[in-house]
Amino acid sequence: MAVPSDIEDLIALMARLPGLGPRSARRAVLALLKKRGPLMAPLAQAMAHVALTARDCTMCGNIGTADLCPICADPTRATGEICIVEDVADLWAMERAGVFRGRYHVLGGTLSALDSMGPEELRIPRLVARMHEEDTREVILALNATVDGQTTAHYIADALALSGVQISSLAQGVPVGGELDYLDDGTIGAALRARRSF
Amino acid sequence: MAVPSDIEDLIALMARLPGLGPRSARRAVLALLKKRGPLMAPLAQAMAHVALTARDCTMCGNIGTADLCPICADPTRATGEICIVEDVADLWAMERAGVFRGRYHVLGGTLSALDSMGPEELRIPRLVARMHEEDTREVILALNATVDGQTTAHYIADALALSGVQISSLAQGVPVGGELDYLDDGTIGAALRARRSF
Repeated sequence: MAVPSDIEDLIALMARLPGLGPRSARRAVLALLKKRGPLMAPLAQAMAHVALTARDCTMCGNIGTADLCPICADPTRATGEICIVEDVADLWAMERAGVFRGRYHVLGGTLSALDSMGPEELRIPRLVARMHEEDTREVILALNATVDGQTTAHYIADALALSGVQISSLAQGVPVGGELDYLDDGTIGAALRARRSF
Repeated sequence: MAVPSDIEDLIALMARLPGLGPRSARRAVLALLKKRGPLMAPLAQAMAHVALTARDCTMCGNIGTADLCPICADPTRATGEICIVEDVADLWAMERAGVFRGRYHVLGGTLSALDSMGPEELRIPRLVARMHEEDTREVILALNATVDGQTTAHYIADALALSGVQISSLAQGVPVGGELDYLDDGTIGAALRARRSF
């Protein structure tokens, strides 16, 4: 019983974060204990604040601090284009790239019979309703290039086929800075099939 | 501005934990945001509670929730032996091994001219005072087998040379389960020099 139970509890909670195990959680908590004033107290406060104020955007599913997320609330974002992403992490990645100026729709997962994720859970009816409200011209499928992601992309494309909007998806090919030698066969095949005039 | 500033602040604070960088801090915060009720709120609360209640033991420097840590407050721990460790992490490691039943003294670092860590900062005068109070028979130097750790061990051994207590240090040798093939030359040399009859 060298470690007081309060600290043990904190370590156990920290160990549930992705990328941290019991060992690294202990290390993180020890670092926090050494900086109780400058780091631990502000971190606890920031976390409690976000846990209290964060909410899912009622429009797109992004995380914000109001009913509408900063993107949906931004009048300068184009309303004619909706980019469909699997997850808030993917939305943040798209925003870091800084090339898309339309709106998003966060599915919150992929279709999965095993995890009982159906169209309702992925907020697809909400997407269809939005497309009418916002007079959407184009839906961009920015789903992960995994089997689950592509299955979901095909399902959405089918569901929207009769709506008359243009449906596109991210290009597949060689990553910027990528070396052919290190790429998998599937990517090289996709890049060759989608080749363009130089 | 896809990420609200409160959440950005939380990510920046998380990224200061050891083992987490900006990327993994973002991932951890996203995981927290997905489990606001079951994980984020309890974690924030546990962290705030520990930040408020944790304090350094006035006797040994271990971290506890009272003036005396659980070990110093435990009357069943032998008072005649003091094990000197560099850090609270090392004390926890010793306690996990569960073979030492005496008291500890946490230095809080090693002697270092660069970081202006002198004997005062390492609480060595406090150690000498304790040895008189507790009628110490043996001081066990459980410092890391690094240059800094061993320099500090020699300094402490010199400082206590006239006190008449027995001074020992952890044995060096082949780790349990270790394979000679993977050990460094220094460890093999130390194990050979400290060989014992079988």
